[in-house]
Amino acid sequence: MEKENTSTLSPETIFHRMFDNDPFSRWMGMELVSVGAGSCTLKMRVRGEMLNGFGVAHGGITFTLADSAFAFACNSQGRHTVSIHCSIEHVAPVFENDVLMAVAQEENLGNSVSNYAITVSRQDGTAVAFFRGVAYRKREQW
Amino acid sequence: MEKENTSTLSPETIFHRMFDNDPFSRWMGMELVSVGAGSCTLKMRVRGEMLNGFGVAHGGITFTLADSAFAFACNSQGRHTVSIHCSIEHVAPVFENDVLMAVAQEENLGNSVSNYAITVSRQDGTAVAFFRGVAYRKREQW
Amino acid sequence: MEKENTSTLSPETIFHRMFDNDPFSRWMGMELVSVGAGSCTLKMRVRGEMLNGFGVAHGGITFTLADSAFAFACNSQGRHTVSIHCSIEHVAPVFENDVLMAVAQEENLGNSVSNYAITVSRQDGTAVAFFRGVAYRKREQW
Amino acid sequence: MEKENTSTLSPETIFHRMFDNDPFSRWMGMELVSVGAGSCTLKMRVRGEMLNGFGVAHGGITFTLADSAFAFACNSQGRHTVSIHCSIEHVAPVFENDVLMAVAQEENLGNSVSNYAITVSRQDGTAVAFFRGVAYRKREQW
Repeated sequence: MEKENTSTLSPETIFHRMFDNDPFSRWMGMELVSVGAGSCTLKMRVRGEMLNGFGVAHGGITFTLADSAFAFACNSQGRHTVSIHCSIEHVAPVFENDVLMAVAQEENLGNSVSNYAITVSRQDGTAVAFFRGVAYRKREQW
Repeated sequence: MEKENTSTLSPETIFHRMFDNDPFSRWMGMELVSVGAGSCTLKMRVRGEMLNGFGVAHGGITFTLADSAFAFACNSQGRHTVSIHCSIEHVAPVFENDVLMAVAQEENLGNSVSNYAITVSRQDGTAVAFFRGVAYRKREQW
Repeated sequence: MEKENTSTLSPETIFHRMFDNDPFSRWMGMELVSVGAGSCTLKMRVRGEMLNGFGVAHGGITFTLADSAFAFACNSQGRHTVSIHCSIEHVAPVFENDVLMAVAQEENLGNSVSNYAITVSRQDGTAVAFFRGVAYRKREQW
Repeated sequence: MEKENTSTLSPETIFHRMFDNDPFSRWMGMELVSVGAGSCTLKMRVRGEMLNGFGVAHGGITFTLADSAFAFACNSQGRHTVSIHCSIEHVAPVFENDVLMAVAQEENLGNSVSNYAITVSRQDGTAVAFFRGVAYRKREQW
């Protein structure tokens, strides 16, 4: 996709300004795999306190991981960017101790709106969820 | 909506079988306001560890609350029911110490698929997010 | 919802500027039931040429009716407004000669983004589809 | 993706049983580019009667093309399959005489539910819309 980093800050610097001050992403145990203009890959291990009443990971866990990857990917383009629509399709259950990887990829970078596909997979490479994020790009820069 | 509670268990009993064994909903601090066949209302207070890098509640927090209300509402009809599609539209920021309320309401109960609207609002009644959930109804009963 | 009609034109006038120049809504046979600031209700009859290979209305027919009601509702607030995300959940089949009604209702009117719920029902009042629309509000006024 | 064609009919044969009896896809002027187990590519030219009040293609046109590609892709796996959730993100306008191409690709084939990504692009290769489809797989075979 088009690379329009309007800030003087690098994607890595913007990532750290966000992530280092993000208590919930840190509670989740997310680790950065890579970040670039319009992309971000994160991973985390599922702990027992993240399960639901069916004994699998709560849908909010997979969502939160994908949502963080989406937020870091869309803000990496240099402007303050907020989520306006997210969707998630769960296609396989996630268990305790699974290591999840979320790969966020920009599919469109418009002047006001940008669009991302995020795929979450397990350690064996199986996709567990497909997430889409639509973001609104504010005027302020990082 | 049509009330088809095919289990001999009441919505309250099913709720407790799920919620009492749901570590993540409990970590979130969710409390039951009401549950019925096809509906559920939950509330919770936003804590500091739930914020993101913008100093507001992480999108995953609002999502998780709505997703739990959705899960309890769709399982209350008596069959094991799993989420297949969720979407969320964030329309207002959520701050530390806000008390969120999620109201899940059934809009369709089909033989295999059911559909829910969940609205999340703050203590002042302002809507902060609109969530939709589509569920697949398995054969097993609670 | 908040009524912020920033244009000097009424919702009815804006509706006619759009609808009277909208060949596809007219091919569909849509008729206005009512329009207001943030709302619009349309109806139409399903013709044989609108069916798909299962002998029921093509999903695009129900979508198009809801999408037009969404467009008229969001533009009625006085600024040029475009769709950025739409979703539809089909919950009942639609047959030839059914008369569909789409009711679009505003749920949030933000400075840049607005949010709508559209329910499509048949002549007997049964809901056939739930549609959500998220719109981006441009600076230009009608 | 996993190839589970449980019908004795080929994807091409299933496609023709559907498309040859699908008046609305034919009114749209859709042409088959390719079909396989879990995939389908269609194209069409945008005509004047398909425009809306902004002078661009009605959102329902792009949606309908993507929705048909989705329907042919999911039914190609051999079981009668119906749409339960569709979403579309419009990212660029479509004009009269544009030739649109919709590429539907399976991302998950479960026992009861399957998931598809459909990208719609113009003749110059620019993506104009991202569509997601979630389908319910009935027991009956083609």
